Amino acid sequence: MCNAKIKVAICGYGNLGKGVEKAIAKNKDMDLVVVFTRRNPNEIAKQTTSAKIIVRDVEAHKYVHDVDVVIMCGGSATDLPTQVPMFAELFSTVDSFDTHKKIPEYLKVVDKRARDNGNVSIISVGWDPGLFSTNRLYMESILPDTKAYTFWGEGISQGHSDAIRRVEGVKDARQYTIPISKVVNKVRKGENPELSDGEKHVRVCYVVAEEGADKEKIEKEIVNMPNYFQPYHTTVKFVSQDELKREHSILSHGGIVICSGETSYGVKQKMEFKLKLNSNPEFTGSVLVAYARAAYRMKQKGEIGAGTVLDVPPILLYPGSKEDAIKNLL
Amino acid sequence: MCNAKIKVAICGYGNLGKGVEKAIAKNKDMDLVVVFTRRNPNEIAKQTTSAKIIVRDVEAHKYVHDVDVVIMCGGSATDLPTQVPMFAELFSTVDSFDTHKKIPEYLKVVDKRARDNGNVSIISVGWDPGLFSTNRLYMESILPDTKAYTFWGEGISQGHSDAIRRVEGVKDARQYTIPISKVVNKVRKGENPELSDGEKHVRVCYVVAEEGADKEKIEKEIVNMPNYFQPYHTTVKFVSQDELKREHSILSHGGIVICSGETSYGVKQKMEFKLKLNSNPEFTGSVLVAYARAAYRMKQKGEIGAGTVLDVPPILLYPGSKEDAIKNLL
Repeated sequence: MCNAKIKVAICGYGNLGKGVEKAIAKNKDMDLVVVFTRRNPNEIAKQTTSAKIIVRDVEAHKYVHDVDVVIMCGGSATDLPTQVPMFAELFSTVDSFDTHKKIPEYLKVVDKRARDNGNVSIISVGWDPGLFSTNRLYMESILPDTKAYTFWGEGISQGHSDAIRRVEGVKDARQYTIPISKVVNKVRKGENPELSDGEKHVRVCYVVAEEGADKEKIEKEIVNMPNYFQPYHTTVKFVSQDELKREHSILSHGGIVICSGETSYGVKQKMEFKLKLNSNPEFTGSVLVAYARAAYRMKQKGEIGAGTVLDVPPILLYPGSKEDAIKNLL
Repeated sequence: MCNAKIKVAICGYGNLGKGVEKAIAKNKDMDLVVVFTRRNPNEIAKQTTSAKIIVRDVEAHKYVHDVDVVIMCGGSATDLPTQVPMFAELFSTVDSFDTHKKIPEYLKVVDKRARDNGNVSIISVGWDPGLFSTNRLYMESILPDTKAYTFWGEGISQGHSDAIRRVEGVKDARQYTIPISKVVNKVRKGENPELSDGEKHVRVCYVVAEEGADKEKIEKEIVNMPNYFQPYHTTVKFVSQDELKREHSILSHGGIVICSGETSYGVKQKMEFKLKLNSNPEFTGSVLVAYARAAYRMKQKGEIGAGTVLDVPPILLYPGSKEDAIKNLL
């Protein structure tokens, strides 16, 4: 085997990009060779701990021969749908696209670009979608007449926080998704109740109102917001900007996937996968880096096109050799 | 896609074979076409709920065109090492070979036979080795400077029960492996202590002594048995054959894989996978059946040779289409 390191690039240097940088430093078979950014490279240079080259993303094509795989760290709303198809023409990529309903269409677009240019792209990598998806698949394949339950939190949901910030009179906000313990325990007991998302979680919103804003109106608008809050038991708490910054800037998150069923009458089997994360972006970054290794190896083997975590043989994530994996893990 | 069912055979109709039969019945894309047995087929015919053809295993070669994949349900000590290489010449196979130290050599032998004959074999399928191995791999690949901890039980260990039965004066025995809660909690807290297997589990042995046997001598011999019991806190309880049968015939088992580490200084991340099984053989059977689907699909795609669960892309286990998996699980 060749001992050259995998040459990795990061595109987008926000919370996730910084998490990826930390994860690359923990993987001895990888080097961070370049950071692509939309911002002023000099500004990024002050923040990075290991990247030597920082250039604007429009210069990316100049680095085709210096990079094996690019970890795309933009947001799902507007960044990834435009950037990843472009980058997939030049490089193998991994990304954490998580707009669930748009995944099939996004996969098709990225697949064509990657395939036409001989690259490998792995989309929707992270913990959900990602590790949780893989666990749901293992569980429902082993017990095919069951459904896996997913609980998210306790943690801040970025999408829901954004939705609150769009309400008139709201200056800033953070939204916690919290699983209802009583319901989690029901599922753990194997009762397999019929549950909507709204019956599994409560939502707690910390809101900073603009001066003179009608708080009662804001609260009403939030709790009645269709899809986002209306189906849930939602609590709104008004706080100062200081308090929001001080008390609600933590990036911890987590969740549980539970699946239980019977293999024959009365014979119960239960599987559970649980994450407790002190930093959502650092953990997501660590997952992305493991799949960057897989994308690199898939391209080395001559594979092309785009896929998801469900398509990736676990062994391709492992930093060591196959022999070591069999000896140490099997 | 072709809608023909996957034609499955079972080789070996003990507890595991019966578990596999129940699992096949829950998978609508599969048919159990034949049971291969070393015993008298008429005897098996009285027990099976769905197999129409039951024949001696030496007749297996006659069914090459009727079977897509054979689920090998013999024991790891003597059955699988002789049967699987023979069957891999005729059929694609999956098995639950679990003699850890012998896996590399076994894999090599099965790989050669499968490869030379254009078949696919997946070895060491089940929950440990199997699902637990896959989880250890995902965890240690995502947090590459950590080690995953595995706890087994509470459940009966077949190997340890057998070891006790070989002690002079012992008529029958069952051995429970029980994780030490205090230690599990330490690991859950992310303390990452250095632990030998003996510090993670206790062993409780229920023993039926032969009439007139020296119980004190039996107990001494058990607790001092190297590897099996000497490194553990071992308790020996003498019971009657009736009590053993009545109270200790349950096949429940389970275990936990925990991995925690830091993605940067002081930032803890924790992953945990847990199984609670009311029937070890029925659950192992269900895992084998999902991997039988994968073996079938790999052969359909033109792959050949032997691999482990670490080599199998998760999507190949899923009973539905890839589109459904993306829509329902990702």
